[in-house]
Amino acid sequence: MQRYLLLPGPTPLPDEVLAAGARQMINHRGPEFGRILAEMLGAARRVFMTRHPVLPFTASGTGGLEAAIANLCSPGDTVVAVCSGWFGDRFADIAEAFGAQVLRVAVPWGEAVDPEAVREALRVAPGARAVLVTHSETSTGVRNDVAAIAAIVRQTPALLVVDAVSSLGAIELRADEWGVDVVVTGSQKALMAPPGLTLVSVSERAWAASETARLPRYYWSFARMRKDLKDGEAFTPFTPAIGVIYALHAGLRRLEAEGIARVFARHRRVARAVRAGVRALGLRPVARDEDASEALTAVWMPDGLDAKALLDRLRVEHGVVMAGGQGPMAGRVFRFGHLGYVSDEAVLAGLGALEAVLPRIGGPAARGAEDAAREILATAPA
Amino acid sequence: MQRYLLLPGPTPLPDEVLAAGARQMINHRGPEFGRILAEMLGAARRVFMTRHPVLPFTASGTGGLEAAIANLCSPGDTVVAVCSGWFGDRFADIAEAFGAQVLRVAVPWGEAVDPEAVREALRVAPGARAVLVTHSETSTGVRNDVAAIAAIVRQTPALLVVDAVSSLGAIELRADEWGVDVVVTGSQKALMAPPGLTLVSVSERAWAASETARLPRYYWSFARMRKDLKDGEAFTPFTPAIGVIYALHAGLRRLEAEGIARVFARHRRVARAVRAGVRALGLRPVARDEDASEALTAVWMPDGLDAKALLDRLRVEHGVVMAGGQGPMAGRVFRFGHLGYVSDEAVLAGLGALEAVLPRIGGPAARGAEDAAREILATAPA
Repeated sequence: MQRYLLLPGPTPLPDEVLAAGARQMINHRGPEFGRILAEMLGAARRVFMTRHPVLPFTASGTGGLEAAIANLCSPGDTVVAVCSGWFGDRFADIAEAFGAQVLRVAVPWGEAVDPEAVREALRVAPGARAVLVTHSETSTGVRNDVAAIAAIVRQTPALLVVDAVSSLGAIELRADEWGVDVVVTGSQKALMAPPGLTLVSVSERAWAASETARLPRYYWSFARMRKDLKDGEAFTPFTPAIGVIYALHAGLRRLEAEGIARVFARHRRVARAVRAGVRALGLRPVARDEDASEALTAVWMPDGLDAKALLDRLRVEHGVVMAGGQGPMAGRVFRFGHLGYVSDEAVLAGLGALEAVLPRIGGPAARGAEDAAREILATAPA
Repeated sequence: MQRYLLLPGPTPLPDEVLAAGARQMINHRGPEFGRILAEMLGAARRVFMTRHPVLPFTASGTGGLEAAIANLCSPGDTVVAVCSGWFGDRFADIAEAFGAQVLRVAVPWGEAVDPEAVREALRVAPGARAVLVTHSETSTGVRNDVAAIAAIVRQTPALLVVDAVSSLGAIELRADEWGVDVVVTGSQKALMAPPGLTLVSVSERAWAASETARLPRYYWSFARMRKDLKDGEAFTPFTPAIGVIYALHAGLRRLEAEGIARVFARHRRVARAVRAGVRALGLRPVARDEDASEALTAVWMPDGLDAKALLDRLRVEHGVVMAGGQGPMAGRVFRFGHLGYVSDEAVLAGLGALEAVLPRIGGPAARGAEDAAREILATAPA
């Protein structure tokens, strides 16, 4: 029983997305598919807030990050990587695996990067090809300030590449306005579709860089992928994940029907409610309020208690599925996802289940999590 | 209207596969998903006819080919590539993109490679790291003799890597018995699932090679992918295409319920029926009978007629979707797919539609395609 999926991805699918994803296969080189993909990419561009191409690779989000490195870098290039958690480290590791000299701007897990540290890194490495930043660090629930970082990077020749896998469509990210060169996201987070596709937006500067970058690439080639992506009819060079594209088409349509500003407001409201709820139970969120991600909340376990016992009971006894910690936070935090198609009911059920389970595993017996959350859900703009 | 999907992939999905693929998302790090993936990979190993690991990458089949190169080769390695069509060329191009010295064993489109030509190439390049072969060349409908090629390659230190994207589960391919080191397939062909996953089997020899191969890799890393693929519970390093795994689990179950020997016999029978049918219309298959792929039949257009007119009418007037030619065969052939979940009814409908449309676009007005096919369908073992 997984009644309430409260993960930072995959997120629950709305009924119409499930139905769309369950349609029979069609020719991925035929006009019907070409129109669906073109419409989907048009909607994606609006959600990315970019006029530039958005490229649909059949892959996990990690594949999109690799595609960015493979298209922008040459062997030996210097890259500045903001490392504020598991996913920041991963992005840096990918760049390193492909032969980049990686200058890591490391901040303690649970903190956001100070944008001035990026300025300093670019002073140390003025020839850096790119700056890699994780927008919503899914391991800690911290949001890095991409707008401020972009303003700094834009004063240098470096490209800004943002891992927005768990943020795009949940947290404001204005690619063109802020001057972000490459934004990478996944289908299975705020976009309300199943995993299987990664979307990558590419600015003009990044296109120009990709034309001279010398890392080998074939599957991830931006140029190959872009070739037949026309506005009215779009086709991919290799057979795409057709069912995921059907689903993402429906997910983006739903997102646009709600309105992107309302979607962001909904995520802010729910994130505040969750933070109030866990605090009512005497628990402490990892991220400070001012740089908390609206996509998920990582929460410290009470001293001496292991997250696994909590997560197992939540799942088995309450049908509530949350995630554990990663790396140095394994066992020490649980992560409450609240992005994409998440209902107030699910969030309240998650808080209620926490309240019920915590005392049974030796944790605090506080009450009032649902009330605290309800209060915010009732007052904040819906 | 795409009533009859007669492509060499994607292929139509059986009802239970559609239903499985439409299940709600679950935690890809939880026990329920771990069991489904482990079961799916167990079934895949039986269909690959291997005791070795089968790795599930979220990607198109082309991604699986790239993964093979990235894990087995070092920059400057020599690789022998059999080029007997579009997909053989693609595999060679991938190896070249990653810095391999590619010795192309090119045969005219429409012919299978003579295994002796592979022996000769390995004599010229005795230090070749790998031999790349396309099993069913989807651009021409030709089947290369992988068993004979394997017997030759096994006498050398080279690894044998087979692109079985459109053959695995349709045409016999005994990975371990024949000594094929790496087999790559896609979910959307004979395995009756939607596109989005590529499966890659890896022999012990290939594992050993991957441990010293120096091409950069991260997303495609065999070692990273294998790490948590246990028999009872399997997990992937990056969020996998959960819905496609649900579907592939159901597709493989269906394939095993039918029995792999019967599945191969069914494909042989249908392929013969299609060839008889198109010949009754005065058309000529591209491949000779003795090396025709059982997955699809590429057919020459009558002189002076363009395939596009035929394909458009088939689709619009009859709901029959076939594929056009690629590369030098564009416009000059149409490709009739008959692999995976293809029914006698669909094959007969395809032939009937060809019979109806051909005279209307200035082609032969022959009749009897369905009768010729029915005769074979009635007599050959079901």
